[in-house]
Amino acid sequence: MHCLVIAGGVADDLPADGKSLGRSDVIVCADGGVHNAHRLGLQPDVVIGDLDSLGDEEREQLQTAGCRFFVHPAEKNETDLELALLWCVQAGISTATVIGALGGRPDHAVANLLLLTDPRFATMQLCLRSREWEVWPVRSEVTITGLAGDTVSLIPISAAVDGIHTQGLAYPLHGESLLRGPARGVSNVMLNTVAHLHIESGLLLVMHGPPQN
Amino acid sequence: MHCLVIAGGVADDLPADGKSLGRSDVIVCADGGVHNAHRLGLQPDVVIGDLDSLGDEEREQLQTAGCRFFVHPAEKNETDLELALLWCVQAGISTATVIGALGGRPDHAVANLLLLTDPRFATMQLCLRSREWEVWPVRSEVTITGLAGDTVSLIPISAAVDGIHTQGLAYPLHGESLLRGPARGVSNVMLNTVAHLHIESGLLLVMHGPPQN
Repeated sequence: MHCLVIAGGVADDLPADGKSLGRSDVIVCADGGVHNAHRLGLQPDVVIGDLDSLGDEEREQLQTAGCRFFVHPAEKNETDLELALLWCVQAGISTATVIGALGGRPDHAVANLLLLTDPRFATMQLCLRSREWEVWPVRSEVTITGLAGDTVSLIPISAAVDGIHTQGLAYPLHGESLLRGPARGVSNVMLNTVAHLHIESGLLLVMHGPPQN
Repeated sequence: MHCLVIAGGVADDLPADGKSLGRSDVIVCADGGVHNAHRLGLQPDVVIGDLDSLGDEEREQLQTAGCRFFVHPAEKNETDLELALLWCVQAGISTATVIGALGGRPDHAVANLLLLTDPRFATMQLCLRSREWEVWPVRSEVTITGLAGDTVSLIPISAAVDGIHTQGLAYPLHGESLLRGPARGVSNVMLNTVAHLHIESGLLLVMHGPPQN
């Protein structure tokens, strides 16, 4: 079952293809993500958070449309996006696309990227998408679909990522390791419309975006 | 000896107080960082990189002014910022402020933040500054100067950060641990103009910025 998770980040960083994203089995909004859902013409199935960003009228309209609410206190240890992803795990979601989580405050952006790598979510295949970028937390493998010349950056999150094998990238890796810190995996380039990567151990962020310059 | 390191990131993310930043013992530019130096009215002492973003005339002017160049090939494993920080280590720099490294492409921003945590730079006290944010990689302690209400986000980079003690934050920590992934350390709040944090083990990014909302 595939889930679209909509966070409350800045609207101008949302992917352009809202309609195709809407073809998910379930649409879950992290609180203010409701506004981003409406911007994309999408109807939330589930809303999670302290609901501080929803007016009474908006809430009634959602309820009438059959939307379910999971309300949490405002003073909590988790972010709304974290609660939404925890809901996905409990609901047995196998793959989820997260949008609305990259633009805006840099601390939120970094925290959201690292949230993807949380072992609690390792049962799901996660992808974070912004207007121009896709990001995957990779523990085993990923297939990237794009255009020749696109950028693919490999960013280790664990202290080391070992046994990296790539296909379809201009600077191929044949079992090498990358360490967290050095920028060696940044700005690789797609040779064609599909690239593939697998790793033997570690935790890697793979970021796919437009060509450099 | 304090060094100002200027990277080639987008100009609108530079700190506003260029003049006070200029009171460093040495100003090192990572290639295109030269343009950011000029925007801030600063004169580079050292330029490092493949120099692909400098015209002949610009290079001559810098040379006449006494600037030193360390030229690296364009096809290299390191980014220009990484080469600039490696130069700092070799030059015996003890503290360095990095600017021009956060705005722009999200893969570069994330890679630059993780570059700060590279053990090769652990001999230096590093701080990355953008227009509104300061970021420190913390292995032992940090003192934060700001305003009551400012945001302080604690983001673990190692799988766990143990024994975190804070002073001057609204949600204090008294020896607790934070794990990489959960967003529990995000959006703490300064109670006054100074906050202090120390950790017993691990690697933590501390991000200080304006109040939330």
